[in-house]
Amino acid sequence: MNAAPEFGKVVVFGIGLIGGSFALALKAAGQAGEIVGFGRTATSLTKALELGVIDRIGIHFGQDIPCADLIFIATPVGQMRDVLMNIEPHLNPETVVMDAGSVKEEVVSIAYQCLGKKIGQFVPVHPVAGAENSGALAARVSLFKERKVVLTPLPENSALTVARVCSAWERCGANVSTLEPHEHDRVFAAVSHLPHLLSYALVHYLTVRENSDLYFDYAASGFRDFTRIAASHPEMWRDISLSNQAALLEELNGYQRQLDELSEALRQKDATSLEKIFTIARSARRAWAKDGKTIKM
Amino acid sequence: MNAAPEFGKVVVFGIGLIGGSFALALKAAGQAGEIVGFGRTATSLTKALELGVIDRIGIHFGQDIPCADLIFIATPVGQMRDVLMNIEPHLNPETVVMDAGSVKEEVVSIAYQCLGKKIGQFVPVHPVAGAENSGALAARVSLFKERKVVLTPLPENSALTVARVCSAWERCGANVSTLEPHEHDRVFAAVSHLPHLLSYALVHYLTVRENSDLYFDYAASGFRDFTRIAASHPEMWRDISLSNQAALLEELNGYQRQLDELSEALRQKDATSLEKIFTIARSARRAWAKDGKTIKM
Repeated sequence: MNAAPEFGKVVVFGIGLIGGSFALALKAAGQAGEIVGFGRTATSLTKALELGVIDRIGIHFGQDIPCADLIFIATPVGQMRDVLMNIEPHLNPETVVMDAGSVKEEVVSIAYQCLGKKIGQFVPVHPVAGAENSGALAARVSLFKERKVVLTPLPENSALTVARVCSAWERCGANVSTLEPHEHDRVFAAVSHLPHLLSYALVHYLTVRENSDLYFDYAASGFRDFTRIAASHPEMWRDISLSNQAALLEELNGYQRQLDELSEALRQKDATSLEKIFTIARSARRAWAKDGKTIKM
Repeated sequence: MNAAPEFGKVVVFGIGLIGGSFALALKAAGQAGEIVGFGRTATSLTKALELGVIDRIGIHFGQDIPCADLIFIATPVGQMRDVLMNIEPHLNPETVVMDAGSVKEEVVSIAYQCLGKKIGQFVPVHPVAGAENSGALAARVSLFKERKVVLTPLPENSALTVARVCSAWERCGANVSTLEPHEHDRVFAAVSHLPHLLSYALVHYLTVRENSDLYFDYAASGFRDFTRIAASHPEMWRDISLSNQAALLEELNGYQRQLDELSEALRQKDATSLEKIFTIARSARRAWAKDGKTIKM
């Protein structure tokens, strides 16, 4: 006989790649009873229902929120304030709430403003599993297998609440770790948000020139990989960039100084400096690819 | 009965990824009799011989150059002057010479200096088939299948000489096209050399910080693809950067202005401009991925 699911009723806001994949994975792990979906358009919710990603489309907050065991907010960061404000009046004290934002300080600040004394029910989460495809059609049960999921717990969270969230993600196959919200935003500004900005910038830079056709005609595999993330969701990355503005600006400035250094070496025809920079980068990249996580220089 | 190979004796300088793969492909196409290899170290030549990439290690220029039908210089660009200077005295008027440099104006200028009246025998070639792996071990017979190979023919080349080079690459499976050397260097500065510099710069930038371990620990698939080319051969890319200095500096400056624009939009929290840049980039990247070559904006 199977045990009862850990979460009888799960409400997901935003049935896209992340929200949809979590719904599929939690259900497959036997940890979810009913999955109820809310979203911006009836079309995308109907599609998610047809695909079997959700069991039912949400009716209204007053009916679906009070009896939810778990609420997962997987919308773009820019919509989270609205969702939190609208669910707060209906929130049962037993319900666990979590988000999927790629930025944590701003989401945490919004959550404090919207949830007030109920803040202990909210656990900030960042599932590190982006893809350039989006929407319910892109959702898949295995998306989080062996992928990192970062929790940035709040002082108000009980150990039990954090443990339940942690366990839900582990049952989806993820490797869960924790960071402080501020530390999280610094790290992801550098290793994720900055590369996205740089990739978008290169494609835009080449696209707006008069004879861009000729250039794209000769772009090859190096360009293909470098620019894969420039096919990412513009609204999502607009929200991430704005929500992590301070850290991202700092990293962008630092990177521009690095480019100034390279530019100067090139202007001076300084072969030694160029080769040194390239060699350090290659060693670091190879070490990272080999052990998948750390590097010593 | 098979026809005799188009090139009875082929001499290859630099038995790495490009030189080795060309040797394997030309032989497999029945277009090469004997493949003779020259290189900087006895170890790598012995390895290439053991792997069957070459038939024989070159003995000395006075013996091997005069009877070569085709000479392929697949060394880093920085070594091409030495090779051309040393083969010139032994060059038979019937021999076809080509290079594999990713930069063409500087190679062409060196070739004029070194070959003098024999310049008509030299056809500049750029096989667009890089990879982050290098050396004879990385060589494979199918490397050039469906890949672009760009010729930048010289006014002194006879139509027959160009046709023989074109045919050799087509028999290796490549799609051959032609550009002016100057145009070639402008295009590749933008779509290949610049992305390599940007990728090296990002990995170097993250590596030299104190707590780089923490950062690499959270780098995921977007970072992996963006930085794949930062694992490329440092000496090769040092040479390419220096040989295409003017065009590369111009593109680097243009890209830095693009970053300034993005940085300013971010500082102003200008959501509209950010989303516009991201949307143009995404459309362009998707169109390019779809038809593999052109894009209209």
